[in-house]
Amino acid sequence: MLNIIGLGLADKKDITLKGLEVIRRADEVFMDGYTSLMLEEDIEGMEKLYGKKIEILYREEIEKDDNRILKDAKSKDVCLLAVGDGLAATTHIDLIIRAEKSGIKTRVIHNASIMTAIGITGLSLYKFGQTCSLVFPEEGINRSAYEAIERNKSIGLHTLVLLDIKRNELSLEGLRRNIDERETRFMTVNQAIDILLSVEEREGRKVFKEDSLCIGAARIGSENPKIVFGKAKDVKKTELGKVPHCLIIPSKMHFIEEEAVNRFRI
Amino acid sequence: MLNIIGLGLADKKDITLKGLEVIRRADEVFMDGYTSLMLEEDIEGMEKLYGKKIEILYREEIEKDDNRILKDAKSKDVCLLAVGDGLAATTHIDLIIRAEKSGIKTRVIHNASIMTAIGITGLSLYKFGQTCSLVFPEEGINRSAYEAIERNKSIGLHTLVLLDIKRNELSLEGLRRNIDERETRFMTVNQAIDILLSVEEREGRKVFKEDSLCIGAARIGSENPKIVFGKAKDVKKTELGKVPHCLIIPSKMHFIEEEAVNRFRI
Repeated sequence: MLNIIGLGLADKKDITLKGLEVIRRADEVFMDGYTSLMLEEDIEGMEKLYGKKIEILYREEIEKDDNRILKDAKSKDVCLLAVGDGLAATTHIDLIIRAEKSGIKTRVIHNASIMTAIGITGLSLYKFGQTCSLVFPEEGINRSAYEAIERNKSIGLHTLVLLDIKRNELSLEGLRRNIDERETRFMTVNQAIDILLSVEEREGRKVFKEDSLCIGAARIGSENPKIVFGKAKDVKKTELGKVPHCLIIPSKMHFIEEEAVNRFRI
Repeated sequence: MLNIIGLGLADKKDITLKGLEVIRRADEVFMDGYTSLMLEEDIEGMEKLYGKKIEILYREEIEKDDNRILKDAKSKDVCLLAVGDGLAATTHIDLIIRAEKSGIKTRVIHNASIMTAIGITGLSLYKFGQTCSLVFPEEGINRSAYEAIERNKSIGLHTLVLLDIKRNELSLEGLRRNIDERETRFMTVNQAIDILLSVEEREGRKVFKEDSLCIGAARIGSENPKIVFGKAKDVKKTELGKVPHCLIIPSKMHFIEEEAVNRFRI
């Protein structure tokens, strides 16, 4: 059996009681180590609390056809832990489909995701359009994110912009030189604003300018989230502290939303 | 202090360890009893597990200016429990703003929400547009839901349609006759499809027809969710069992999404 268990957003105590029970009964526990980080990353503490050894797996190990999770889940009770929810911002649907094809039973234990926890900004989740992602500039030109913001704005909807995460991934430099050089990097709100402004410069359709309002958020879901609201040029200069960060581009706001986000005005 | 604690979607064990700790230390525990239901509604079991008496409050009691939560949170450690996440499909942002204005500290403990748990259908959350809600026909004509689906489809995005819930609310009959008659009703997928087809008949813009593909889902987040995928006319005839239900109108799907939803094909 394969259990995909969401860990929630901040630390080891964000697990649900149900998730914890399933982990404690499991034969093997893996953790998806490539999509985000627990804010207080603390594998040892998790192992102690959950009562199980946890083995971190990176992207290639989970995505390859003949991976350990699928092999072991045929005969054992296997858990895959994922930060947030296992089927939201990061999705393991492909793994579930492959498991089912091999006759493996699957179960999903949900948890909080960044995609809904942003409700803490005060913007209504009913007024968000499509979520998009920004990648580091050397990985792509980010036109699709720009266009998502443009489309959402054109119909009065806010946009959640998720920011690139590289965890133990082959670096471009490593790929170029054909050596196994790994890197871990999280995009900050400050970088994200710079990137979007440079896309704006290229595209020129007035979707995201220095004067555009935006919300920068850090450590959403933890006990010390930092949220700032203001013009892009001002948010860009604000230090939000530890990652993970995300960026929100609001469209027209309801007066309650305005009142809510003004609590975070720079 | 006011703690807004998400309970997750299915039963008492969907609470997080962090939420549980905060409840156990609290002076008073209220539960928002009007927005959804725990699938195995079991207040007594919750009280036993959480180690606290839980008092259910309905909409008017939470929304009125001078409510018990705000009064008590001034001097006590108060929890408000909400099914799902406290700031997603149902939002308590207004209560948080009012609390902060009265100088009350607030904390939010997030949990799974229907808005992301639908990832279990296999549709990518990155391809959803605006979420909308359907109300019972006697409460409104549901044009805004129809238009949200239309707008989302026009830019290739899926739509999550949340279905009306009445919990202990004044009935229309009661309002008409000026008596305190209460009702509890949950809209089913079958009713929702009928409602949308009748809006289609009125509006006639070919947004949702008998042949339109849709996904009906029941008890998402629980251990026995039921998901069916097919033409509206066929899903309409399918029995999904116990509420809560929700409806999803997919737009153009990626091939992995197609493979995923075809597992639920009628």
